[in-house]
Amino acid sequence: MQIPSTMATSVLLEPRRIELQERPVPAPGPNEVLIRVDAIGVCGSDTHFYESGAVGDIVVQSPVVLGHETSGTIVAVGDGVDESRVGQLVAIEPQKPCRRCNLCKDGRYHLCRDMRFYGAWPVDGSFSEYVTIDEDFAFPVPETMTAEEAALVEPVSVAVHASRRAGVFPGAKVLITGAGPIGILNAQVARAFGATEIVVSDPLEHRREFALQHGATSVIDPMAGGLDGYDEHFDVFIDASGNGRAIQSAFPAITRGGVACLVGMGADDLEIPIAMLQHREITLTGTFRYVNTWPTAIDLIASGRVDAAPLVTGRYGLDDVEGALMKAKTDPLAIKTVILPAIKGAN
Amino acid sequence: MQIPSTMATSVLLEPRRIELQERPVPAPGPNEVLIRVDAIGVCGSDTHFYESGAVGDIVVQSPVVLGHETSGTIVAVGDGVDESRVGQLVAIEPQKPCRRCNLCKDGRYHLCRDMRFYGAWPVDGSFSEYVTIDEDFAFPVPETMTAEEAALVEPVSVAVHASRRAGVFPGAKVLITGAGPIGILNAQVARAFGATEIVVSDPLEHRREFALQHGATSVIDPMAGGLDGYDEHFDVFIDASGNGRAIQSAFPAITRGGVACLVGMGADDLEIPIAMLQHREITLTGTFRYVNTWPTAIDLIASGRVDAAPLVTGRYGLDDVEGALMKAKTDPLAIKTVILPAIKGAN
Amino acid sequence: MQIPSTMATSVLLEPRRIELQERPVPAPGPNEVLIRVDAIGVCGSDTHFYESGAVGDIVVQSPVVLGHETSGTIVAVGDGVDESRVGQLVAIEPQKPCRRCNLCKDGRYHLCRDMRFYGAWPVDGSFSEYVTIDEDFAFPVPETMTAEEAALVEPVSVAVHASRRAGVFPGAKVLITGAGPIGILNAQVARAFGATEIVVSDPLEHRREFALQHGATSVIDPMAGGLDGYDEHFDVFIDASGNGRAIQSAFPAITRGGVACLVGMGADDLEIPIAMLQHREITLTGTFRYVNTWPTAIDLIASGRVDAAPLVTGRYGLDDVEGALMKAKTDPLAIKTVILPAIKGAN
Amino acid sequence: MQIPSTMATSVLLEPRRIELQERPVPAPGPNEVLIRVDAIGVCGSDTHFYESGAVGDIVVQSPVVLGHETSGTIVAVGDGVDESRVGQLVAIEPQKPCRRCNLCKDGRYHLCRDMRFYGAWPVDGSFSEYVTIDEDFAFPVPETMTAEEAALVEPVSVAVHASRRAGVFPGAKVLITGAGPIGILNAQVARAFGATEIVVSDPLEHRREFALQHGATSVIDPMAGGLDGYDEHFDVFIDASGNGRAIQSAFPAITRGGVACLVGMGADDLEIPIAMLQHREITLTGTFRYVNTWPTAIDLIASGRVDAAPLVTGRYGLDDVEGALMKAKTDPLAIKTVILPAIKGAN
Repeated sequence: MQIPSTMATSVLLEPRRIELQERPVPAPGPNEVLIRVDAIGVCGSDTHFYESGAVGDIVVQSPVVLGHETSGTIVAVGDGVDESRVGQLVAIEPQKPCRRCNLCKDGRYHLCRDMRFYGAWPVDGSFSEYVTIDEDFAFPVPETMTAEEAALVEPVSVAVHASRRAGVFPGAKVLITGAGPIGILNAQVARAFGATEIVVSDPLEHRREFALQHGATSVIDPMAGGLDGYDEHFDVFIDASGNGRAIQSAFPAITRGGVACLVGMGADDLEIPIAMLQHREITLTGTFRYVNTWPTAIDLIASGRVDAAPLVTGRYGLDDVEGALMKAKTDPLAIKTVILPAIKGAN
Repeated sequence: MQIPSTMATSVLLEPRRIELQERPVPAPGPNEVLIRVDAIGVCGSDTHFYESGAVGDIVVQSPVVLGHETSGTIVAVGDGVDESRVGQLVAIEPQKPCRRCNLCKDGRYHLCRDMRFYGAWPVDGSFSEYVTIDEDFAFPVPETMTAEEAALVEPVSVAVHASRRAGVFPGAKVLITGAGPIGILNAQVARAFGATEIVVSDPLEHRREFALQHGATSVIDPMAGGLDGYDEHFDVFIDASGNGRAIQSAFPAITRGGVACLVGMGADDLEIPIAMLQHREITLTGTFRYVNTWPTAIDLIASGRVDAAPLVTGRYGLDDVEGALMKAKTDPLAIKTVILPAIKGAN
Repeated sequence: MQIPSTMATSVLLEPRRIELQERPVPAPGPNEVLIRVDAIGVCGSDTHFYESGAVGDIVVQSPVVLGHETSGTIVAVGDGVDESRVGQLVAIEPQKPCRRCNLCKDGRYHLCRDMRFYGAWPVDGSFSEYVTIDEDFAFPVPETMTAEEAALVEPVSVAVHASRRAGVFPGAKVLITGAGPIGILNAQVARAFGATEIVVSDPLEHRREFALQHGATSVIDPMAGGLDGYDEHFDVFIDASGNGRAIQSAFPAITRGGVACLVGMGADDLEIPIAMLQHREITLTGTFRYVNTWPTAIDLIASGRVDAAPLVTGRYGLDDVEGALMKAKTDPLAIKTVILPAIKGAN
Repeated sequence: MQIPSTMATSVLLEPRRIELQERPVPAPGPNEVLIRVDAIGVCGSDTHFYESGAVGDIVVQSPVVLGHETSGTIVAVGDGVDESRVGQLVAIEPQKPCRRCNLCKDGRYHLCRDMRFYGAWPVDGSFSEYVTIDEDFAFPVPETMTAEEAALVEPVSVAVHASRRAGVFPGAKVLITGAGPIGILNAQVARAFGATEIVVSDPLEHRREFALQHGATSVIDPMAGGLDGYDEHFDVFIDASGNGRAIQSAFPAITRGGVACLVGMGADDLEIPIAMLQHREITLTGTFRYVNTWPTAIDLIASGRVDAAPLVTGRYGLDDVEGALMKAKTDPLAIKTVILPAIKGAN
């Protein structure tokens, strides 16, 4: 495969200012692969970095490349990597843990204190024509999967990690608050984990409609009735909204011994009905990214258990990353926007 | 509902000798319900009792009523049971544990040393027009389920318990040996638990065909190639054959850290590749009946995750229990035979 | 054994008003045993009921007998119980679950919605000369154990349940806030579970001293330095104070993937550092009483792993229950007070 | 610290032929440390390699250095390692996993297919004056620990891994067959995990005596009574003998739902009472080395929960490795033999 010497890269210079730069194509180091990027999903955190220059404790202090929901084709390999990998379509897990600390060795590398995560300052992400990554974080996908689906392995992984942490089990009753991309994928993944009742709550009617067509067994409107009649009903509650009120009002609906798992990011502090948590022995936890989820997420998509493709509602070239970043925010009908380096403008 | 004073009951007098007797309809005791039996599945152990008068350590020493895969309609309730239950179609969990020992209180009542199990001498089973059981072991099924499906909750429960004990997980690769009813339902249940590769092995071609249409993602013939190419491949191995050779030859196909779970009953002793088990840290265990599986099995059937109905290949009245018992044994095309007290002869 | 027809019973008539009444000795029902009470520990909840007439949602609406930390000698048995049990010294688990709901059958009977718990209105407790209980909730103790130690099996059970729920493991670093009886027993039980670093925090110096002599590997004063230097240090945090500030300030000291388990009861609602919980994937849960803990608690005491006896700092007869109830509250040096029906007044 | 250019190394040339060679002291590579070896324990597998040239599938095909139970002092560090580590006394975990495969990333690096294990052909071990290892596999020990104790962290790790795999829990009843060093350390570690009844079985009286003084709560002689009276008694069975008869005869003594965990290596195949395993839902598994055990093993020794030092019954210099290797085999009173490079001959 012919590899050019330079590539287009979309760089966030400062809040609300992105520039398309021409940069050298990186060379893959030992155990790394060089990937031609085929599709990158836009995440809410990308938009947040773009607008405010920060996500939680991470503050952008110098130009950075965003983007971490990535698929692409291996075009070159570094020392120690089998040449036969060239040509593979891969889904990229955008993490570079240290591999040496006790958390890494214990199978919890996502909590590694020396993690270098794609597209979170100061580590460059994948809004670019080419990227490198350690070969074991570039997972080949079956031929039946498209590049867009391979990029969606990342948000599906968020949901796989959530269903694992929340302990979703066959026959479980699951409540999900928030019907954005993560809420909908959580519904589908919970179903793939065997949940038989999956109720999605969202104040927007078209989002509830979408959820009902893509994973939910029923939906509720928190503004009209909400969780009335669901007292002590759900085995598992997954929040995909980050909304404090949504989280608080879900507690009475959790059964004794049930689990609440917070995926959406919201306020730093939140008042919790702690006596209820104790009396019912409810377990409250949250998720931070994902760990060892790529093979599972790929299997679930490839086997048709999770149908992520319909979530894509907009496609943009690298020349209009700003348009893509603002789409989700300004268009209430947008679900998931992707960047395709091979196209120009918005499609 | 009008309840007669006597009922027809099929009694095993001695090996290979069954008599249809007229017995008094029992009265429900405190916390019990009286159920008009609608359908009873025939299990391999029923046939074994009929032919040999014993299953394992349990030897029939006096006349006994067989049958433990039962559905029916509640027609009367004992003291302490809500009258509103009359009229419910229920799936019966055929266990009467002591509820007081440490195993019962620890959620493992199926291992209770004082268990009274339906249709295992000296406890009468359900090849009868009416039976009683503790109300909490009579589980109402949704209106969408038929009496035959409700009777099949029992073998589905066998598979749910197996998938739990074996730790089948989303994305798991599962090997199942034996494509009889239990093998096929294990394939379907493993799929409902999220397994994405489910390989069923059976020497009979029509059973492999049936498995492929009802849960397996692929099938293999142990007489032709067998597990060649599957070394260290499967996360979980479930035996539903009871065949020692099948079990032994599956070991090399289990991955490091994988699980082997034996559901089928076979010989008392079996030579196991113990050094391989140690080096790969394989876990070997077995299942004994089931525990807390009815709600899950009902949900899986009601939600369409498990499609048990097509397994029924023969229907008999109480007047031809012997025909039903011998059907599975003599007709290689038979999968599952049920007794319907409301009909006469074979259908 | 000679059993009188009436017995002395200490009855709470209304808040702050207790009367010693003469009541008939109850007869043991089927599967029950009649126990001559030898020792009853006084719990903070007893004092709370006495002073305010309520604990959480449970409001005393008519006269009730308090007391649930009980040991005694079996003096008679009901139908179905082996006569040979007469004479046994037993530790009483003061719970009467329904044994029939899904929670009971799943090994979580402490969460049973029909639980009848000793000494919580409207169920009478054991501040009395005799009580009855289902025989399987009366656990024989070894001859090496005293009646006082047998009564302390209850608070030890609280700690066993907490260490289980919190997942205390061999080599764990454990933080415990609050050095009252429950905090100290949690320290000892955590040690018995293999924890090698057990830090107890309490603002009172003599309690810290006591903790250091009875289970803690080190102590800290929350008013002087507190958890400085312990950031991300502890695998497990157990709160035995019910103090909101203590709980909140412990979070930064919990390691990634760690557990916070709330045993002490406090306010209904509490502000939690939810973003930190998510980023570090901390698990927050609480305990409600205990389940299947008596055999373990007895073994830990009998084997010397837990040394509960030194906690007893005061002994009272049934004629001075009010004195016993107020002792813990008014005497800062009191740790655990017990009622001994065989004595008169305070000792 | 002054580091010489050459060192003494004990090399196994072929079965039963060891030579003390002078070899260059290795230089630590990136992320490695150079360690002056202070003590190395002799393992049964070392003796097996020496006598037969093979252990299981691993056949010695060229000269190799044995030894993998190692402690020492860091004398130099490679690139990327903090200089301040020089001078630390460390316990060496003798494993070099790939860190990149799915097993490594899932916290099960001991099952890595590309593992390079110290002292197992073709990887050289530590019967030498100096060795190198990745710095994260060289664990500093507290100042209270001696070099001999630090070397014993390896066999303690074997036991920690076994107790974890076997699920030893507080209050557990544990049976251990074989009272060699691994059996005795398993008894101590099971106790540290909270087991309250630890029965050790061994045919040799002095080994039973030693076990009784160092961890067992009681002992039995398999040649006299054996497990009579222990039917369905033990929650956990750990085999540390590798003896097929010992394993088989232990099964009836395992309780329903119990675990059998095989640590000792024996025959490739073994006949197992498979119907009993199924009826009682016994779980059978084995251990392969250890994973993430060093911190725990060090904590257990440092806190006094495990007292490994008394196991050392013989000390040899590098000039008499053959004497050390044959000691355990020929002297029935020997428990654990160590090599101390600083001494000459046998002590």
